[in-house]
Amino acid sequence: MTSTAAAPPPPRAYRRLSVEERRAQLLVAALGLFAHRAPDEVSLDEVAVAAGVSRPLVYRYFPGGRQQLYEAALGSAADELKLCFTEPPVGPPTERVARVLDRYLRFVDEHDTGFSALLRGGSVVETSRTTSIVDGVRRAAAEEILSHLGRIGGADAGERSAGPRLRMMVRSWIAAVEAASLIWLDEGKRPPAAELRGWLVDHLIALLAATAATDEETAAVVRDLLALEAPGGPAGRLAQLVIPVVADAAHLLAPAPAAD
Amino acid sequence: MTSTAAAPPPPRAYRRLSVEERRAQLLVAALGLFAHRAPDEVSLDEVAVAAGVSRPLVYRYFPGGRQQLYEAALGSAADELKLCFTEPPVGPPTERVARVLDRYLRFVDEHDTGFSALLRGGSVVETSRTTSIVDGVRRAAAEEILSHLGRIGGADAGERSAGPRLRMMVRSWIAAVEAASLIWLDEGKRPPAAELRGWLVDHLIALLAATAATDEETAAVVRDLLALEAPGGPAGRLAQLVIPVVADAAHLLAPAPAAD
Repeated sequence: MTSTAAAPPPPRAYRRLSVEERRAQLLVAALGLFAHRAPDEVSLDEVAVAAGVSRPLVYRYFPGGRQQLYEAALGSAADELKLCFTEPPVGPPTERVARVLDRYLRFVDEHDTGFSALLRGGSVVETSRTTSIVDGVRRAAAEEILSHLGRIGGADAGERSAGPRLRMMVRSWIAAVEAASLIWLDEGKRPPAAELRGWLVDHLIALLAATAATDEETAAVVRDLLALEAPGGPAGRLAQLVIPVVADAAHLLAPAPAAD
Repeated sequence: MTSTAAAPPPPRAYRRLSVEERRAQLLVAALGLFAHRAPDEVSLDEVAVAAGVSRPLVYRYFPGGRQQLYEAALGSAADELKLCFTEPPVGPPTERVARVLDRYLRFVDEHDTGFSALLRGGSVVETSRTTSIVDGVRRAAAEEILSHLGRIGGADAGERSAGPRLRMMVRSWIAAVEAASLIWLDEGKRPPAAELRGWLVDHLIALLAATAATDEETAAVVRDLLALEAPGGPAGRLAQLVIPVVADAAHLLAPAPAAD
């Protein structure tokens, strides 16, 4: 070995990041901070420290300041969340929904305070743009769930297009899932995520059965779904557990019309 | 009749209002405007015109301007909504819940755009104060529903205190009702309010049954509730309609353990 005039290559950690890589690095740092504190409480200085870069650099990427950084971080979290929903249309539908919920609850767990602040509203960083990002996620969730029910959300999808009752059912179940996950965060993430997921699947099955009782289309959807379920799977298990509850209601059944 | 020097009494419409009456009059005028347009689009000038008073008078009552007026109007609407929830604890519980929902849907119908703008978030008039007013209404709704289930929301209510699963169930059902009523407004108030109410009651019954399947406390609550229901009432009718749906799931029941 001799000392030569050629400078050694810079260590890998210091190599220059591309614009896209740098932007992604700043968003990851920001999301890490938003996960533990309300968005209004996170400053650009802290994002710079967390990412190990200078404050002017953060401003160069997000000249609109905290608001722009927050919206970009939210958009990136929204894309990540939409990916969680993607589930191939194979196997028993309740198990597909269970897998989607497992990934969703993992996302909620990781994003914690930021998730909570975002959905609770009243934040100074909330604008019509952040609201429309969140609505986009809700729409994507509804489309995905409808697709596992064998339907399409759009009104122009021909005979696979979901009717109004089924669409309302899916969207209101999604609102219930959101509310349950906020309560779950409030209560120190109890019960365990797997137990919460099981109950949310039961909720959807029960809601499908109750809606099928008065809506023809949902009744047809439920018949098709039951044919895809596995013996002893979530739908069978719930049916088995609910039978005694329904039996307790036997005295409430209207008397059969008298035979003539 | 002779003409005399005594002036006639001022016509009733012009009599001086008390401070409280005037304030109430301005809030009624404001709520009337908020019912048809987003809160950000309503000016104090318009409130003055709608109430038939001068603009300075509106400012005298609400020196904080539009934001203060909006929060006061919201507080008054919240009080009105909480009154809608109040239902005596007599008769079949599903019928009590149906009456509460009827009054709630009438409120949603009357407050229309204002209700929708408020709950959708992203409004410039939304603050942590407006969020906490809305949360207070949600809490009142949860307390009322829990009371008809024979429980109390607070953790310190002794043996009548609702457990975590039951509280989560009621709060997530309330979120589903909120979502359904926003969708209902979006879809031109279809289906008719009575049909929507019937489906929301079915949703609660189904959710109670599904939760009773895995939660001891909810199972006990459901047994007590069923004893209070009327034959042919909502619970009996739903049980009757759901029996064939559950029967379709017969092939999913886990096989009974083999006898030895």
